Amino acid sequence: MGRNATVSRVRLILASQSPARLATLQRAGIEPEVIVSGVDESAPAPVAPVDLAQHLARRKVTAVADRTPIEADDEVLIGCDSVLEVDGQAHGKPADADEAVRRWLTLSGRSAILHSGHHVIRRTEDGLIREVGRPGSTVVHFAELSAAEIEAYVATGEPLHVAGAFTIDGYGGPFISRIEGDHHNVLGLSLPLLRILLDELGVHWTDLWR
Amino acid sequence: MGRNATVSRVRLILASQSPARLATLQRAGIEPEVIVSGVDESAPAPVAPVDLAQHLARRKVTAVADRTPIEADDEVLIGCDSVLEVDGQAHGKPADADEAVRRWLTLSGRSAILHSGHHVIRRTEDGLIREVGRPGSTVVHFAELSAAEIEAYVATGEPLHVAGAFTIDGYGGPFISRIEGDHHNVLGLSLPLLRILLDELGVHWTDLWR
Repeated sequence: MGRNATVSRVRLILASQSPARLATLQRAGIEPEVIVSGVDESAPAPVAPVDLAQHLARRKVTAVADRTPIEADDEVLIGCDSVLEVDGQAHGKPADADEAVRRWLTLSGRSAILHSGHHVIRRTEDGLIREVGRPGSTVVHFAELSAAEIEAYVATGEPLHVAGAFTIDGYGGPFISRIEGDHHNVLGLSLPLLRILLDELGVHWTDLWR
Repeated sequence: MGRNATVSRVRLILASQSPARLATLQRAGIEPEVIVSGVDESAPAPVAPVDLAQHLARRKVTAVADRTPIEADDEVLIGCDSVLEVDGQAHGKPADADEAVRRWLTLSGRSAILHSGHHVIRRTEDGLIREVGRPGSTVVHFAELSAAEIEAYVATGEPLHVAGAFTIDGYGGPFISRIEGDHHNVLGLSLPLLRILLDELGVHWTDLWR
């Protein structure tokens, strides 16, 4: 991959209200604009968890693209959505603390798969609109937690705000014994996958650095 | 694991000047005191990379324990050290930008193992000193980078300050395609391993939360 001279003209939009996704990009030196899609995340017809994540990622970024006027010569819009697959079922955010506790009683000592859908749209000044998308999947192995630890973890409030009722980069960190895949994908946005998708659209990652 | 009533009396000391280790603990809700060991990190006699990391972790925390007066009824001191194993050789921080570029030309498109040594000392009011230590090892798969990307990454300065010439949680994030293990271990301190070591010393992780 080379570099080009169009660096400063790329307007980068993240179609997600997830603080973890924004922080993931910022820690990697990327500062996007955030525009929230407002897409209803309730599941459509029964579908495999990985397809659900990819479907919602595409819907979110498409909704934002549809209602956001083109303002720059080169715009990139990123949509993501995450689900945790446990025994073939998709788990989103828990409804309340009781559900978070029940989830953790199931997860303790076993593994699951965190799928994050990614869909990227590029709109350039020549009127071309191109898009690519693929899901990232990371196997997550959960440590064995005592009932007291689950209670203490849920009491932090953290599990209530995230798909799968855990986050790997906060209070939940010590409770994930290992992963296979990209840990950013567990946070909701895979940086290595996004780099590849952007490259497929002709955008070089290092050109996006501030 | 249960809970005990000694929560507020634990003085937690991190024997490391690594900002990544401190941030890893802080993001997980733990606020340690930092006391730097000043231990010379140059390698001793030839030794396996994983043993080198564990040896230096123990030396660092022992040096800090030796010169830090006991001030609380219950004190826990944590020492860590990280090396990247590439073809059986230990790689620490690169000496300069040229070395960082050469390292990345080697790492691009292949994998290596990040070893972080962990040694924990607990000193309690009854005069007992107990210690445990074990290394954590994470396989790291590097993406294929162009020469221009390597140049741009090294120009950020980030690779010069870290073992192995990369960090997974900063500009380097998109250049790590996947890992097998704990990503905190790649940052220099494995939270799930530390939780287990502390438990072996009778300290419950959730009792350390602020």
